[in-house]
Amino acid sequence: MQSTMMNAPLSLNHLLERAGRLFAGNEIVSRRPDKSLVRHSYGEFYRRTRALASALQGLGLRQGDRVATLCWNHHAHLECYFGIPAAGGVMHTLNLRLAPEEIGWIADDAQDRFLVIDDVLLPLYEQFKHRYTFEQVIVYPFSGGQALPKGMLDYEALLAGADPDGLVYALHDENDPVAMCYTSGTTGRPKGVVYSHRSTVLHSLVGSLPDFCSVHGSDVVLPVTPMFHANSWGMPYMAVMMGAKLVFPGPHMHPDDLLDLMTAEPPTLALGVPTIWMTLIQTYDASLKTGAANAGRWKLPTGLRSLVGGAAVPEALIRAFDAHGIWIMQGWGMTETSPVATISYPRAELRGASADEKYRRAAMAGVPVPLVELRARGDDGSDQPWDGHSVGEIQVRGPFITGSYHEVGSPADKFTEDGWLRTGDVASVDALGFVKISDRTKDLIKSGGEWISSVDLENALMAHPSVAEAAVIAIPDEKWSERPLACVVLKPGEQATPDQLDALLLDKSFAKWQLPERYEFIDAVPRTSTGKFWKLKLRERFPH
Amino acid sequence: MQSTMMNAPLSLNHLLERAGRLFAGNEIVSRRPDKSLVRHSYGEFYRRTRALASALQGLGLRQGDRVATLCWNHHAHLECYFGIPAAGGVMHTLNLRLAPEEIGWIADDAQDRFLVIDDVLLPLYEQFKHRYTFEQVIVYPFSGGQALPKGMLDYEALLAGADPDGLVYALHDENDPVAMCYTSGTTGRPKGVVYSHRSTVLHSLVGSLPDFCSVHGSDVVLPVTPMFHANSWGMPYMAVMMGAKLVFPGPHMHPDDLLDLMTAEPPTLALGVPTIWMTLIQTYDASLKTGAANAGRWKLPTGLRSLVGGAAVPEALIRAFDAHGIWIMQGWGMTETSPVATISYPRAELRGASADEKYRRAAMAGVPVPLVELRARGDDGSDQPWDGHSVGEIQVRGPFITGSYHEVGSPADKFTEDGWLRTGDVASVDALGFVKISDRTKDLIKSGGEWISSVDLENALMAHPSVAEAAVIAIPDEKWSERPLACVVLKPGEQATPDQLDALLLDKSFAKWQLPERYEFIDAVPRTSTGKFWKLKLRERFPH
Repeated sequence: MQSTMMNAPLSLNHLLERAGRLFAGNEIVSRRPDKSLVRHSYGEFYRRTRALASALQGLGLRQGDRVATLCWNHHAHLECYFGIPAAGGVMHTLNLRLAPEEIGWIADDAQDRFLVIDDVLLPLYEQFKHRYTFEQVIVYPFSGGQALPKGMLDYEALLAGADPDGLVYALHDENDPVAMCYTSGTTGRPKGVVYSHRSTVLHSLVGSLPDFCSVHGSDVVLPVTPMFHANSWGMPYMAVMMGAKLVFPGPHMHPDDLLDLMTAEPPTLALGVPTIWMTLIQTYDASLKTGAANAGRWKLPTGLRSLVGGAAVPEALIRAFDAHGIWIMQGWGMTETSPVATISYPRAELRGASADEKYRRAAMAGVPVPLVELRARGDDGSDQPWDGHSVGEIQVRGPFITGSYHEVGSPADKFTEDGWLRTGDVASVDALGFVKISDRTKDLIKSGGEWISSVDLENALMAHPSVAEAAVIAIPDEKWSERPLACVVLKPGEQATPDQLDALLLDKSFAKWQLPERYEFIDAVPRTSTGKFWKLKLRERFPH
Repeated sequence: MQSTMMNAPLSLNHLLERAGRLFAGNEIVSRRPDKSLVRHSYGEFYRRTRALASALQGLGLRQGDRVATLCWNHHAHLECYFGIPAAGGVMHTLNLRLAPEEIGWIADDAQDRFLVIDDVLLPLYEQFKHRYTFEQVIVYPFSGGQALPKGMLDYEALLAGADPDGLVYALHDENDPVAMCYTSGTTGRPKGVVYSHRSTVLHSLVGSLPDFCSVHGSDVVLPVTPMFHANSWGMPYMAVMMGAKLVFPGPHMHPDDLLDLMTAEPPTLALGVPTIWMTLIQTYDASLKTGAANAGRWKLPTGLRSLVGGAAVPEALIRAFDAHGIWIMQGWGMTETSPVATISYPRAELRGASADEKYRRAAMAGVPVPLVELRARGDDGSDQPWDGHSVGEIQVRGPFITGSYHEVGSPADKFTEDGWLRTGDVASVDALGFVKISDRTKDLIKSGGEWISSVDLENALMAHPSVAEAAVIAIPDEKWSERPLACVVLKPGEQATPDQLDALLLDKSFAKWQLPERYEFIDAVPRTSTGKFWKLKLRERFPH
């Protein structure tokens, strides 16, 4: 017997058409380089996006061709998110925080035909253009003040010359590609992940569910996560699907700027990496002190929900925001997983739990979302029990998880023989399905045959009132093979001694042998382009 | 270029496995024929469902074989929802409210191999067994008090003898069938709609979104909608996907019984047809009157949301519930659409609107949900503008909408040449995408070349404080071709004259020529098996 259901492909074009018809009056706000705000309606977004698609087809874009973007978060980048696939192309978001040589390498690997670039990023382009030549460079006049370099196209002129009504969507299968993004390359060369209509629509549906991002049409969404990092965690697609108002911060990521923006356009849903929120809450709390320079300048939005991921979220950060009535939802994922794979949310089973228990759970990576299968594989290749302490490598499978890499295929260190993605993250899973990441496989510290979790030590140290940040790395040890070294950043004007920190850790049930061998007090923890602690740099600085 | 995403099929088995792992401690409550409550954990549900699947395979069930159910809403029916597809079978829910001959005809049309039946429904089985013979009849001991008829199998014995751990899921494609349901046959013979893994998972994701059913894991869901009506609107699948507590009413649908159940196990989300809620709120409001027999017996759950559909929801009903803090979300769909196709929800654009405007919108069918394309086709075959007044036949398309019928194919009166489903409902769509159903095509009244909407008249009449229900039909008229006849049910002890009702309609901006030709005051509006007004019966009673 056959199902009688229609054979209707999942498609981003449907989400675009839907938004144009249903949400024409809703708003998209973008912050310009000069910090002024520019407003577009969804209706304008719809017509501009169709015009972009029409123009790209006019430029000769063929099905499957890559169009790179090198842009901050703003409305024109959103137009690329939908307009490039509408033309049949594949949007490839280049990461502007990478070294120029690496950007060039990645564009070459992807064989991008066109580039859409913010005018303010042309100086960066100058630094990698020797490495790769695009057929067309389309400049978005984000600052509006720059003369168009010779041979380049003006984004606005291109749209003005195209007919939004004349667009004929490229015919497509739901498995056809719509976007690609490169892994951060912390382990080896960056590798391209290529998303499809199907994977993107499914990820949008799952991520928007009430227990996860809970995206309502009445939400005001502030994506601080760059649109060149794993599709800004898929939020642009989700927001457009539901018709939510979007507020884009443009290039202004300084805590003062974000607080200004949040005061002017109060979001109900924000997303970003922990470091952004850490500095933001410190800046805000400082403004509340008597006689503070910024006293009264900012107002944190009431009832804001914030999705935080990209690195482990310290419990102290969750408590600090909760004190202001802002709930932090921790998510975990990677470029390879679209990226939302797990989210920590208030489970029905925890209704009667203590506040401490709720914070403890909120500080975990969370539970797998629907359509994501997850297992923790032990060293012996068998599944670890979900008992809350047995650890193994997290492996995942599902329709919005990559099964290979562009041009690289499915290397054995990234995929199992039975087709699961090897994430490289080591975690335990408890009886409620909460995943607790201990470490990246390569960040675990092996001391005397026992594993020490650098993440656990970092989170405990960051709960100390004087500690702003802490990063723990392994240093070689003749007797124990490896021992932990704690690099600690103190808050301005605050003090803490190694003895005090040791006492804190013992108080938090760490064993004596798990305590750091040594403390280094440093000015700042070096960060990768995605805002994560860059432990490689610390290891270079403290080789022993 | 190819997408690198995994080829992972959408599957109900994934939802079952997920529920078993993540939500083992959550609860499923069912009301027995003797009105006692029986409680199962999700963990038990998971193991019992796997045991059922294992047992069905042991009985020789082959991929694609139909297993009929003839059951009320309870946990064992939920086990069938997941266990039959897990075994590779297709669950076919038989409608126990149909005439026995029709049930037999439908079982024959579907060629059901097995039947799972509640013991309390065996007398019904006796009435249609001459019409069709199942290979196996499995009796669920719902009342527990009946002796097992010879040759039949006991559901509990079957599960006890099967090994849940031994289950090997039938290998499947995501387009393979999982369930089937017959249309109500108001226009011609009932026709079978066959859902797939894909359509069911997609419908569950879309329906659960925050603006629509908004299914949280912490919800307590009361599906009053029978599980044999369009999959109980998909709620069993949605609830299990999110891990929500389920409260099943069993065979007890009387308002007193539902109010007792809602008082004992307060739901946060309920669903059912308007008539159920109409009588329920009348019963509850009566209990609040001084000296009422049931004073103090019931408590309506605070913050309850209720999805109401299956027939037009009168604005008066929405206002009556809102007065108790219960928000009614109107949905529209049909067996052919899985069924949720549109839902009326509070749009961002209506934030500043008056209460009257919000009620007006809530009384519409709502806006199309994601993945559903919708158009209103005029008589001339062109799309009607979304202007709020131009009406046309609603046609829909999407991955959880049927493209044909079992054994019948795609008749031209049900599908357009370009592959859209013709719903037979006539509606306007406004600029925000709100669909307003005027009528079923065949229920429109054509008076002097102009259409009169019976639904509009009914809703206006039901706003009168003395009117419990109103149904408007067409009667033949020599001069005008057709004229409206209003059949009115008054509330107990209340009075209303035709003149008073005419005055109300004129007050609500009806034109004089749109007023009913005549009023008939009747005791009750006859209903179809799905609880809708059965106008065919009224037309037979009032032929002129």
